[in-house]
Amino acid sequence: MNGERVTIVDVATRAGVAISSVSSALNGRPGVSEATRERIVQVAAELGFVPSLRGKSLSGRRAFTLGLVLHRDPDVLELDPFFGGFIGGIEDAIDPRGYALVLQISAEPDEVLQRYEKLAADRRVDGVFVNDLEVDDPRIPVITRLGLPAVAVNPGADFPLPAVRQDPDDGIRALLQHLVGLGHRRIAYVGGRPNMTHSVQRERAWRAGLEELGLEPGPVVPGDFTYLAGASAASTLLGLAEPPTAVVCANDLSAIGLIAQAQHLGVDVPGTLSVAGFDDIRLGTYVRPPLTTVHTSPRELGRHAGRLLVDLIEEGVAEDVRIPAAELIVRESTGPAPAAG
Amino acid sequence: MNGERVTIVDVATRAGVAISSVSSALNGRPGVSEATRERIVQVAAELGFVPSLRGKSLSGRRAFTLGLVLHRDPDVLELDPFFGGFIGGIEDAIDPRGYALVLQISAEPDEVLQRYEKLAADRRVDGVFVNDLEVDDPRIPVITRLGLPAVAVNPGADFPLPAVRQDPDDGIRALLQHLVGLGHRRIAYVGGRPNMTHSVQRERAWRAGLEELGLEPGPVVPGDFTYLAGASAASTLLGLAEPPTAVVCANDLSAIGLIAQAQHLGVDVPGTLSVAGFDDIRLGTYVRPPLTTVHTSPRELGRHAGRLLVDLIEEGVAEDVRIPAAELIVRESTGPAPAAG
Repeated sequence: MNGERVTIVDVATRAGVAISSVSSALNGRPGVSEATRERIVQVAAELGFVPSLRGKSLSGRRAFTLGLVLHRDPDVLELDPFFGGFIGGIEDAIDPRGYALVLQISAEPDEVLQRYEKLAADRRVDGVFVNDLEVDDPRIPVITRLGLPAVAVNPGADFPLPAVRQDPDDGIRALLQHLVGLGHRRIAYVGGRPNMTHSVQRERAWRAGLEELGLEPGPVVPGDFTYLAGASAASTLLGLAEPPTAVVCANDLSAIGLIAQAQHLGVDVPGTLSVAGFDDIRLGTYVRPPLTTVHTSPRELGRHAGRLLVDLIEEGVAEDVRIPAAELIVRESTGPAPAAG
Repeated sequence: MNGERVTIVDVATRAGVAISSVSSALNGRPGVSEATRERIVQVAAELGFVPSLRGKSLSGRRAFTLGLVLHRDPDVLELDPFFGGFIGGIEDAIDPRGYALVLQISAEPDEVLQRYEKLAADRRVDGVFVNDLEVDDPRIPVITRLGLPAVAVNPGADFPLPAVRQDPDDGIRALLQHLVGLGHRRIAYVGGRPNMTHSVQRERAWRAGLEELGLEPGPVVPGDFTYLAGASAASTLLGLAEPPTAVVCANDLSAIGLIAQAQHLGVDVPGTLSVAGFDDIRLGTYVRPPLTTVHTSPRELGRHAGRLLVDLIEEGVAEDVRIPAAELIVRESTGPAPAAG
């Protein structure tokens, strides 16, 4: 660690607490016990961590750029629903404060890690955004070791970096209530990429929601957030001895693929099969039937992530943000369950 | 103009020639007359423009970042087919040479101009990419005045900045030959945003291609590259006293909207109406019927644009690039013309 750069991560690590706790403790906000607050203040003092002064003293050396390294195949970026809104939101927040966004795209996981190393080594950026989080994401120890200020989007619980979150639970619970209200009892699930935090969160919300309603979880078909995975899931589910009457998909794109393939197989949506997505991408309003889904807010997430990262760089602290939960949007791809056959 | 920064634009302006001519003249490549070459060499000498030395002398002051300012609504960026591949291609070219990409997005045209001013004033970037060119694009005089090295994507002819181009003509000509070979004689067109250079190029190619084949251009419906514009065009065209039997759309997304609306109106595609797009976005392979289209190469365009811009910054010259023409891809949305009614 470079002696000049005592960061909030150092304080959190030394004190054995989350960064958000350090932020709360040093800003006199609730959320930490008095004992913890005292320990954090003491550790910060020992390490010489003085948030606002540190921000000022470093200002002459800043790049005034923030990094976003996307781990995707550049050829398929075209269909990503999250990307445009999220970047637009970051811009909304950082441009008025004098920062610009450096964007990098890598298809290979190892290259992603190298990019962070290089951005830090070249002092190319003052901080980074971390999205598309994986379970046990290998980027986190690298970013922490590099001492790069960082803000994460939708990580799991007990995450060591400041984060913006939008919970899927309420939206999925409302969706399941909607389907059960329409008479559905066999409600299947088509998964997203299994190693991604948001896949895990959404599937867990589906399972918990059904349990709350006293129903057995229906069949689960693994997926990967793509149109093709949705289409393939349609064939799998409709080929079952007892097919579901409704399907919840991990995202809109796979729901749209599922509907197209169901229709191709002569199955009416929603007459025979109700289908719902997650994300509320624009395409879902164009397809027929228009897609019932859960609305998320990539632009809002981007705005808060941008604000948090600049706060973290300039003030040395940033508080976690939880934006209003994702919300159910009922359109025409869900309808009454067919009479039992 | 800053006295230290004599650029290729200055030489071209003073000599009254295109930048590509300056590049050819100073690099001993064909494409300029001997008289023009002599004039350019003389002007370059008068202005003290020495490409390779200049590149070296400025290296200590470089930001090693390149700017891309997109003029879009951040909320609708999600559906843009060009964006991901183009940025991926830029990255392929600039990262190995030590440059990173700064991305900005603005919904307002005036703000786009201010962003270029600001990028130049802050020396935030060493050069910029200019895409989505408009007819008489207001960005060009601003960029030229700022002396910002710049590379354009698919501008019109006689453009004052270095450019990468992919011609639509051959692909659209092949598409029309394909349709005429299937018996179509009334071939309509759904336009893109009318002020965009690539809209103009594509519509002109459609019109010229039909003339070459000895056919009258069919009805033209204005559009704006969106799914909704395509859907609306379907209603317009199918409501005509003599509807076309085939439609060429300015891009895939409007073709996909057109097909969906035609199907909704009970019109079989391609049985009653053949529909073709332009771009070859991945979504076109998923819809039913899969879309006949013209394949373009955003990632290749990005690679060449990235290479050209770094060349321009480091060597002071960059030669125009024309990549292989867009190509016809026949899928299932085009078929034999119905028997005359």
